Amino acid sequence: MKITANNPNRKSWLSIAENSDFPIQNIPFGVFITKDDIITIGTRIGDFAIDLGALHQLGYFEGIPLTDDIFLQDSLNDFIADGRKTWRLVRNRIADIFDIENNGLQQQTAHKDKIIFTMEEVEMLLPVSVGDYTDFYASKEHATNVGTLFRDPKNALMPNWLHIPIGYHGRSSSIIPSGIPVRRPYGQVKPVEGSNTPGFGPSRLLDFELEMAFITTDSNNLGERIPIEETEEHIFGLVLFNDWSARDIQAWEYQPLGPFLGKNFASTISPWIVTLDALEPFRVDNPKQVYEPMPYLKVDGKKSYDIKLQVGIQPEGGTETVVANSNFKYMYWTMAQQLAHHTVNGCNVRSGDMMGSGTISGPTKDSFGSMLELTWRGQNPIALNDGSTRKFINDNDTVIMRAHCENDEVRIGFGECIGKVLPAIPFKE
Amino acid sequence: MKITANNPNRKSWLSIAENSDFPIQNIPFGVFITKDDIITIGTRIGDFAIDLGALHQLGYFEGIPLTDDIFLQDSLNDFIADGRKTWRLVRNRIADIFDIENNGLQQQTAHKDKIIFTMEEVEMLLPVSVGDYTDFYASKEHATNVGTLFRDPKNALMPNWLHIPIGYHGRSSSIIPSGIPVRRPYGQVKPVEGSNTPGFGPSRLLDFELEMAFITTDSNNLGERIPIEETEEHIFGLVLFNDWSARDIQAWEYQPLGPFLGKNFASTISPWIVTLDALEPFRVDNPKQVYEPMPYLKVDGKKSYDIKLQVGIQPEGGTETVVANSNFKYMYWTMAQQLAHHTVNGCNVRSGDMMGSGTISGPTKDSFGSMLELTWRGQNPIALNDGSTRKFINDNDTVIMRAHCENDEVRIGFGECIGKVLPAIPFKE
Repeated sequence: MKITANNPNRKSWLSIAENSDFPIQNIPFGVFITKDDIITIGTRIGDFAIDLGALHQLGYFEGIPLTDDIFLQDSLNDFIADGRKTWRLVRNRIADIFDIENNGLQQQTAHKDKIIFTMEEVEMLLPVSVGDYTDFYASKEHATNVGTLFRDPKNALMPNWLHIPIGYHGRSSSIIPSGIPVRRPYGQVKPVEGSNTPGFGPSRLLDFELEMAFITTDSNNLGERIPIEETEEHIFGLVLFNDWSARDIQAWEYQPLGPFLGKNFASTISPWIVTLDALEPFRVDNPKQVYEPMPYLKVDGKKSYDIKLQVGIQPEGGTETVVANSNFKYMYWTMAQQLAHHTVNGCNVRSGDMMGSGTISGPTKDSFGSMLELTWRGQNPIALNDGSTRKFINDNDTVIMRAHCENDEVRIGFGECIGKVLPAIPFKE
Repeated sequence: MKITANNPNRKSWLSIAENSDFPIQNIPFGVFITKDDIITIGTRIGDFAIDLGALHQLGYFEGIPLTDDIFLQDSLNDFIADGRKTWRLVRNRIADIFDIENNGLQQQTAHKDKIIFTMEEVEMLLPVSVGDYTDFYASKEHATNVGTLFRDPKNALMPNWLHIPIGYHGRSSSIIPSGIPVRRPYGQVKPVEGSNTPGFGPSRLLDFELEMAFITTDSNNLGERIPIEETEEHIFGLVLFNDWSARDIQAWEYQPLGPFLGKNFASTISPWIVTLDALEPFRVDNPKQVYEPMPYLKVDGKKSYDIKLQVGIQPEGGTETVVANSNFKYMYWTMAQQLAHHTVNGCNVRSGDMMGSGTISGPTKDSFGSMLELTWRGQNPIALNDGSTRKFINDNDTVIMRAHCENDEVRIGFGECIGKVLPAIPFKE
């Protein structure tokens, strides 16, 4: 099926700022609550939130096989489970409805009042109910940096890293949408030199991790695998993802079973899922891999995407300082390889599952995706606009992530993934 | 509120075998599908499955604040979210309804036909929809054995182990109820000595892990913690749990982020959740801990439970050989400590979350909870009844776990947690 929604020449009758992340070629999906307290699935065009529940009730999706309440839900899980053909039909139809050449909805003022809101009039919620959240570790630069800092610079990459898209399970319950503040976590930390007693208190090394995450559909039955050629059919789209990390808690707890409380206190995602279809024009060559991938990890075609990433820090009352610029294409392991690997043992993947990329660090120092790497574990603090410096994230700092793709014809963006760090709650025993 | 359901002198008008795991003092909760294809929440008394949905519709829970459809659901999550007071009211009422002194339901033949089934007439489903599954690593003997086998016998326990209830996140999607067969997984394994190329194929070191898991209720908001004194209020009950493990896949993948595909191909739980209330008579002293626990991990009172555990292996067409006898009381870290630790950083816990104990190995060689430990990584194969031996689990073997508590007055059991290993599906590229 042709993805007509991607037509770069299409213009909308809605007014859209020139550099908007959300032109009519994007058509992402999200969940919001309207000023009238109605929770619905929607899309975004420019700075307008479009209520897909209302659009469907008013008959604008006629001819597309959809249940009546498919958009009147508090998560996209069921819609995603309908499969790629349905996503494409709906996205193409939305593009058509808001096309400047289309006089349908454009001239129905009463309908427009029910369907179109400004972004200020709605509150974004989590777009999916995440059943399982997996985090990969797919940037070679990041794995090398962390291995150098935490283990052995001479053997920074573990022997398995170049053969396996290393991943681990994360916590679903603490995934929150952009904008919800994050509480600085308490935890145990390594004993100081010469002591046998661990420390305890609010984390002193609170960090962000610049990631993206893809959202899957129902993909396979338990015991079956997804061949790598079929993986992209099962990827609905992507979000920006800040995998908050408490480095001191993580360093003390993570051996031998991996990160736990150093990660699961909060994970922030951007609220709009940008579909893999919308990212189609931004495919780029896959990274060259050191070893020939095993057959189950090998596939033809461009499976990497050129998505520009940025992180800024904004202190309370101050202005934002951009501290990192990276790109999703720096991932050594592609999403296709990750999903093929995840299911090669028969592990089942469901609609709404989320798979994080791992921190996306590039080759240069200003492209590293965490404070740990940017400041080299605090050795080289970063100067902010207001003259203060940061080794890690301070209380009341806001971390702002952005992502977009751009070519000569169109810009497809993700909006922002924002989180403000609140001071730890005083601990009483 | 008095837990009158635990009265050891109570007898039921239902006929119950003397050594049943499910006397009228147990009253566990589960979900089943009846011969008429109705999915409902139920309990078990002797070999009878009791339809709580029907019981409620016929008015037997009058006076207890319950929504009309609370038992007509495919998971216990909402009922569990109602909280401990409601669980106790319902359990006490069920004990009363089936008490031999009570002439109500006992004499209502038409009602009994709608409410009471034999276990053969129903099929057990998963009792909860598991939002997040965490696995701990709480047996000192197991952690010591694994550390000795995989790392360094002189430093078998990691430095953090005696200070932290080490845990990690597992996969929810592949949790299955007892009886569903398990497919031998494929995966990458370590290169053989002298090679740089990993192997690939069906796991050759497929293992069980003898665990129990507790199910939580909605417990805390993100950012808040559960003080250790309050933890047991948030534990609904326990199940038996086989944390299937592919040792060769696990050994190659687990550094540095922990187990992944070596575990997430299947996790089998017993279908009846035995409430913490029912286990009340079986509290025993907590294990002596090497270091004084930190204040947030310290609590008065008996938080360990004396639950006898057993594992058997039954080859295709053969009889079962018991290969291990262990006990839940061998856990070094209690459930109270695990839940307090899990939330000390503000991680939120929801109704239906599952927390595994980790493999429960005791002090003696016949009490180890995995083949890895029982055969000491294959060095000492186990002889089965039929004359064959096992280093790990063979295709078509069935692994059977059992658990029960017993004192002079009553026996409270969990039934069985069973899984048969099917051969790997041939892999085509």
